[in-house]
Amino acid sequence: MSSTWGHTFRISTFGESHGGAIGVTVEGCPPRLALDAEAIQADLDRRRPGQSRLTTQRDEADRVRILSGTFEGRTLGTPIGMLIPNSDARPEAYEDLRDVYRPSHADYVTEAKYGIRNWQGGGRASARETAARVAGGAVARRLLAVACDVRVLAWVAQVHKIRSGADPATVTPEAVEASPTRCGDPEAAERMVAAIADARRRGDSLGGIVSCVARGVPAGLGEPVFDKLEADLAKALLSLPAARGFEIGSGFAAASMTGVEHNDPFVAGPDGRPRTLSNHSGGVQGGISNGEDIVVAVAFKPTATIAAEQRTVDRSGQEVALAARGRHDPCVLPRAVPIVEAMVCLVLADHWLRQRTVAVLDDA
Amino acid sequence: MSSTWGHTFRISTFGESHGGAIGVTVEGCPPRLALDAEAIQADLDRRRPGQSRLTTQRDEADRVRILSGTFEGRTLGTPIGMLIPNSDARPEAYEDLRDVYRPSHADYVTEAKYGIRNWQGGGRASARETAARVAGGAVARRLLAVACDVRVLAWVAQVHKIRSGADPATVTPEAVEASPTRCGDPEAAERMVAAIADARRRGDSLGGIVSCVARGVPAGLGEPVFDKLEADLAKALLSLPAARGFEIGSGFAAASMTGVEHNDPFVAGPDGRPRTLSNHSGGVQGGISNGEDIVVAVAFKPTATIAAEQRTVDRSGQEVALAARGRHDPCVLPRAVPIVEAMVCLVLADHWLRQRTVAVLDDA
Amino acid sequence: MSSTWGHTFRISTFGESHGGAIGVTVEGCPPRLALDAEAIQADLDRRRPGQSRLTTQRDEADRVRILSGTFEGRTLGTPIGMLIPNSDARPEAYEDLRDVYRPSHADYVTEAKYGIRNWQGGGRASARETAARVAGGAVARRLLAVACDVRVLAWVAQVHKIRSGADPATVTPEAVEASPTRCGDPEAAERMVAAIADARRRGDSLGGIVSCVARGVPAGLGEPVFDKLEADLAKALLSLPAARGFEIGSGFAAASMTGVEHNDPFVAGPDGRPRTLSNHSGGVQGGISNGEDIVVAVAFKPTATIAAEQRTVDRSGQEVALAARGRHDPCVLPRAVPIVEAMVCLVLADHWLRQRTVAVLDDA
Amino acid sequence: MSSTWGHTFRISTFGESHGGAIGVTVEGCPPRLALDAEAIQADLDRRRPGQSRLTTQRDEADRVRILSGTFEGRTLGTPIGMLIPNSDARPEAYEDLRDVYRPSHADYVTEAKYGIRNWQGGGRASARETAARVAGGAVARRLLAVACDVRVLAWVAQVHKIRSGADPATVTPEAVEASPTRCGDPEAAERMVAAIADARRRGDSLGGIVSCVARGVPAGLGEPVFDKLEADLAKALLSLPAARGFEIGSGFAAASMTGVEHNDPFVAGPDGRPRTLSNHSGGVQGGISNGEDIVVAVAFKPTATIAAEQRTVDRSGQEVALAARGRHDPCVLPRAVPIVEAMVCLVLADHWLRQRTVAVLDDA
Repeated sequence: MSSTWGHTFRISTFGESHGGAIGVTVEGCPPRLALDAEAIQADLDRRRPGQSRLTTQRDEADRVRILSGTFEGRTLGTPIGMLIPNSDARPEAYEDLRDVYRPSHADYVTEAKYGIRNWQGGGRASARETAARVAGGAVARRLLAVACDVRVLAWVAQVHKIRSGADPATVTPEAVEASPTRCGDPEAAERMVAAIADARRRGDSLGGIVSCVARGVPAGLGEPVFDKLEADLAKALLSLPAARGFEIGSGFAAASMTGVEHNDPFVAGPDGRPRTLSNHSGGVQGGISNGEDIVVAVAFKPTATIAAEQRTVDRSGQEVALAARGRHDPCVLPRAVPIVEAMVCLVLADHWLRQRTVAVLDDA
Repeated sequence: MSSTWGHTFRISTFGESHGGAIGVTVEGCPPRLALDAEAIQADLDRRRPGQSRLTTQRDEADRVRILSGTFEGRTLGTPIGMLIPNSDARPEAYEDLRDVYRPSHADYVTEAKYGIRNWQGGGRASARETAARVAGGAVARRLLAVACDVRVLAWVAQVHKIRSGADPATVTPEAVEASPTRCGDPEAAERMVAAIADARRRGDSLGGIVSCVARGVPAGLGEPVFDKLEADLAKALLSLPAARGFEIGSGFAAASMTGVEHNDPFVAGPDGRPRTLSNHSGGVQGGISNGEDIVVAVAFKPTATIAAEQRTVDRSGQEVALAARGRHDPCVLPRAVPIVEAMVCLVLADHWLRQRTVAVLDDA
Repeated sequence: MSSTWGHTFRISTFGESHGGAIGVTVEGCPPRLALDAEAIQADLDRRRPGQSRLTTQRDEADRVRILSGTFEGRTLGTPIGMLIPNSDARPEAYEDLRDVYRPSHADYVTEAKYGIRNWQGGGRASARETAARVAGGAVARRLLAVACDVRVLAWVAQVHKIRSGADPATVTPEAVEASPTRCGDPEAAERMVAAIADARRRGDSLGGIVSCVARGVPAGLGEPVFDKLEADLAKALLSLPAARGFEIGSGFAAASMTGVEHNDPFVAGPDGRPRTLSNHSGGVQGGISNGEDIVVAVAFKPTATIAAEQRTVDRSGQEVALAARGRHDPCVLPRAVPIVEAMVCLVLADHWLRQRTVAVLDDA
Repeated sequence: MSSTWGHTFRISTFGESHGGAIGVTVEGCPPRLALDAEAIQADLDRRRPGQSRLTTQRDEADRVRILSGTFEGRTLGTPIGMLIPNSDARPEAYEDLRDVYRPSHADYVTEAKYGIRNWQGGGRASARETAARVAGGAVARRLLAVACDVRVLAWVAQVHKIRSGADPATVTPEAVEASPTRCGDPEAAERMVAAIADARRRGDSLGGIVSCVARGVPAGLGEPVFDKLEADLAKALLSLPAARGFEIGSGFAAASMTGVEHNDPFVAGPDGRPRTLSNHSGGVQGGISNGEDIVVAVAFKPTATIAAEQRTVDRSGQEVALAARGRHDPCVLPRAVPIVEAMVCLVLADHWLRQRTVAVLDDA
């Protein structure tokens, strides 16, 4: 369903970019999980604008309030309602966009779909909606940590043509947070900062890639047909604004490989469970986790909002020239890191709970 | 849900690779659609093994039977039950795989998940399950053709390192079907045939890429948040066996681009509706179709079944050497073409029907 | 799903009886529907406590705020988030219920299910949750009115042993609202008022029946198998706190009838469409509306909270005596009227939208 | 969704009354459950026509075939596909109903909904569809027996005005099966047989009530809001052909009771867990099972097919007289018993599995 994610662990979001508030409801979270607003706020703070000169200067406090579903610091098993007020809405800044379709934005398609549009911002297509996902994902992250010690870590693997040298097998949260670029590679970070500053100066924007690893995922999560783990991860990450591509494990490189090169040989692990010598599978085989690290990547297009003048049309069909103003990121990648983590956490928490309904019978 | 696809136009599949039959139920197909088994069989014939020397010699007639949901050549609006008997099951051929986990297959994860496994074939993870999808997709294709003149066409864009020169804007069904490689480029086809034959000789296998274009999709299909059109397409295609990556429009190339390069300028179309000068968006903006061609690609890893000896472990945790036998494709790409089309048709038919519940009110 | 109702027109609620707020999100409402908070508030005002001496004196303003999904007085097609703050929470009033299970309340089962309980009120099982349903139902009611002129009206058909003489075929909103009993029958109203006052004096409570008619429902809504219209209505109404029984049309009386008595003969209607001479079917045949008035009834048990001393046990398993205090209704029936209407509106709006995906093809 | 039941344990059915076959797919059944076709056939044999002179003489063998989802006598955790061929379809018997709407059948509403109808029988609205439910319910029954020792037993509590004296607390499967009436009361059975024979002679039909008890249901199943256990039971039972009413526990009698009479006092059970002295709640409080017997009842209208001449209209709107022929039950109640049990088993198996995702955390 449009604004709902998940089968057993679910979130549902509402809210336009410039309205009273955005909100998220978490359904299906098990009871008795220790949870407070601070853990959620920490993830939100990594997403919000204005963290550094790299990102938009729009000042949103993004303070989350828990309205229901917890009691004395623990979850009740009932829906966790959370609200994030819109504290810095300035709809008048959008006044001159009332009748113009910004190129590669959702303005035109929103009117094509609904026949009406809130022109005071990006509506539901706005990146602001992702704050609600991050709040919901923080609950999923907490559940994964307590229930099965799964840890999810994303980083900026590429900005424009600059690649991070971070290694999925060893990259740490500390390394990622060491730079506002969140690329986990100090040398690349410096070049990325320069490239982003340059793009801002030119009124241009930059694309990039975020990679993500999930460590500690037990074997057996996922489903063999439509709800393959990689399928749900792909949907989760392609549902992010500006996402254009998804890879798991070897990804598109697999297309140029042979089976002899690509197959991951099994060996006996230290505890007798099978391990693989390589991880081209990215931790998932036939839709189901195999106990290795899950490694995915998502490609983001450059931000559509640029200062350079562009050709477009207005609602009456007239061709016009547009030069966007307002406060926007020349490169969303650093802020996308916690959002990617949130979506991966949501997928894994959901499948971890789903597996509780599979492994229920002793041999009967 | 695991074996069900779609929200309004839905298919549900069942069946192991070696059992009585595989089946598919189509729910939510509108009534009064002219439909007969021949149209469905035509798509199945493009998927089935044994079409040429390029593909596995396993002889499955793959004859579909419609058991319900039609009357006098038209749909009733009720579930369309279809059955495809397994005519060539030879479980004994798998006897020596009873206790061994084939590398990069689903054998191990199936046991990790369920604690039981039908070792007589690939179970639900088998590519045979995709026959049910193709049958369901054929109904979706028929609905799209009648209801809104949408045409979906896929082709093999790459086999190993050989790329097809087919152009998404102009490639035709006839060009695709002209060669058993289904690559739409006679010169590349020849080299692909040679490469596949060579891989077969070496007991190896090859990966590749299938591209797909959907023409005639009206603007307004899709949803702005989780059920973005590209998100559902990504899940649909990553749910296929051996899929490792997904792109829409510019895909991973977008990561290296700037906003000035990437944005698709709007111009007034011949009928006054906005058109874009370029199509880096791949026909979807903010999760919703914009009326341009939808262009996607999916990367497939090389077939996991190879003749070369491999390291692996058995159920008791002992390391063993494995040399697979049996009849399998050295390259699944040509047969993947109708399967990719089926999944894209399913996504579009579902979203086309969903949009029927959006555009219901005149200005009230 | 636990806190979500509907397939295409959906509401999702959150909130405990004594927490920050209760909320509801409406998903799937078509765009461009004229909607403001006043229309929703009007239904809420009919549900809220303190309307008359008949109902609890708890003073909840129940003021609804629309947080998203509308723009300039019209729906956007996006989720409509609504919030109703809890203005009068007095958790300390519940302090002595911290460890005691009130008979025929949800205290014990909540702990059996979740292993944790917010003892400061009834939690999710509280009737307060129904305020969120009424807010969502008000949107459904508005859609039905605009889209297909469907009107839904409920009334108190019975309080304890006193029956209303209101006739489903002719009862009017004005007649229902003429008395705080909402029974649509002045003579019965007087006796009901006396009976409720008497029960209050005795510290006892009374059950009753609410009936509901939906007029103007077009033929063709509903589904032939699991989602029969009467099945969804039954679930909707049995999901209300204290509901114990459901009937459509002839209901339990049908059990004692013969086919000759019960069948509804068809005659040609004034516009040539078939009408029925009787309406034992209650407007639904084989799960699908036939164009006649839909008539349903729901039985409510007497309120579980009574002042009289009762036997019960506490969390440690000790038997204790309990005499409830606090502010509660001796008879919920009058306040249940708008809630029943809300649920019926939600079911009909959902099925009306679902039918938009059925009737889409001309003969093709 | 129309032809799918359940959230975690799900069945999906297809098939018209007179077509190739009816079928059912069970999704979400845990792996390693011992299951064979005989257990399923046993329930089907109780439902099928022709068991005694009381029921229709239509000779349907109703032989079920398992097509997938089991291996060596155990479930695989994958979809269990089952087929029941239509062995006795005689569409020509319906030829003269091609253009006539039978009163209180689904003929007219089917055309109103779909604009097309398979007039060769009752289509999806036919009672034949319930064979698929019984097959799916047999799997649920088996899961409940193995997983938590829940036993579900239904019986005919009333035929026309004759009530069975069977007591929900003590009635046994043997007592129920002792008579073809399945009423569990030899004296009432004799009178029911005579009443049914008399109705058959007169070309008339009789309504009645089926009651059902579920024993051994652990406390904690169900959900507090929309998916209350009684709400899902109500939907399940109202989704049966000819069902007109539903009760749980005290049912409609609760409307005439006071809280002092109705509340179920808690006492300490033999193992320290709370038990109730009475069971007006019918085993469910606030939507969640409390560990007592779950007791429900469903009212069925008299069979719509009668031999007596009736007024009706045809497709052209002309009024005509109709005297039905063919082989139908004058009283469906005895055959409804296994169907009611099947639906109750489906609801309980689903909620038992759902609860596996709630009780997952130790105090963390």
